Amino acid sequence: MQLMKERILREGKVKNGSILKVDSFLNQQMDIELFEKMADEFWRLFGDCNVTKILTIEASGIGIACLAGQRFKCPVVFAKKNKTSNISDDVFSSLVHSFTHGKEYEIMVSREYLLPSDRVLIIDDFLANGAALNGLIDLVRSAGAYIVGAGIAIEKAFQPGGDIIRNQGIRVESLARIKSMDENDGIEFY
Amino acid sequence: MQLMKERILREGKVKNGSILKVDSFLNQQMDIELFEKMADEFWRLFGDCNVTKILTIEASGIGIACLAGQRFKCPVVFAKKNKTSNISDDVFSSLVHSFTHGKEYEIMVSREYLLPSDRVLIIDDFLANGAALNGLIDLVRSAGAYIVGAGIAIEKAFQPGGDIIRNQGIRVESLARIKSMDENDGIEFY
Repeated sequence: MQLMKERILREGKVKNGSILKVDSFLNQQMDIELFEKMADEFWRLFGDCNVTKILTIEASGIGIACLAGQRFKCPVVFAKKNKTSNISDDVFSSLVHSFTHGKEYEIMVSREYLLPSDRVLIIDDFLANGAALNGLIDLVRSAGAYIVGAGIAIEKAFQPGGDIIRNQGIRVESLARIKSMDENDGIEFY
Repeated sequence: MQLMKERILREGKVKNGSILKVDSFLNQQMDIELFEKMADEFWRLFGDCNVTKILTIEASGIGIACLAGQRFKCPVVFAKKNKTSNISDDVFSSLVHSFTHGKEYEIMVSREYLLPSDRVLIIDDFLANGAALNGLIDLVRSAGAYIVGAGIAIEKAFQPGGDIIRNQGIRVESLARIKSMDENDGIEFY
């Protein structure tokens, strides 16, 4: 998606080699007009797949997923990262190892919101090592639901997550796939 | 907002006296069509206030705020609850005491996304003791921005938060204001 690439080039900041800061439009300040166009693109890619539910993970996936949910006219469910008193005890859960934060955390979703009859599109902002996406896939499988695929805003394609998940036979569509990035040499896309 | 009240009556579950579970449509599974109508209502209330930015807090405020952002045609910023490597060091922060979880946590937002020239509408899913909302107000004040008001999905009006914040002269508009609720006697609105 040309618009996403241009925006990353204009506003993205590379830090410490592998961190890409895009918080001016994607994951702290959110450009809703851009999110609408991303939703259009996800619809172009997955619009014929009879998606019944969009699954994402808190926090920065939620905004993108909600605009996509508007386009797909289906509910959006987000996996929570910590068990709180607001969530039912009856959950699907999966353990995720975060490379960014160097720790493991549990993600979970109430069983009642992922059904065997669901056709699930997973939406997230980043795909790098694939840890969060693998966890979300795990939740969908636990529910016995069908995984239509994953729609990702930005894939760091120089990290292994995308390959690992595509090799499982899961369709992954990323709006921008970064080939390489560097503080000095800038960002290159596929 | 009649639609919100009806939905709460139909799907909300009261637990332990003061917890209202609405995760089938508001804060785990999100009904985007309802969110669109909530955004219309926030627009009806605040549409003439020249809002330049919507501020919310992760995680369950984000979806509502994003649909509102679409209606108001302005960016949405969410305050983060924990410092991560993805956030700038240069932040506004405030300490929030969570009654629900019985602990204190810091909320923060990058300084570059709240400007003195901003006219900020705060959006959140719940208002009870007002701790989170007070923290968000604190962030806006730290930035020297103007607080247009707060748009809340559900106010537990039997808890003190709404009064405390209105007494500061801040306009608070809640789509449903709960007068009382009880596992057996049900939910009553203002």
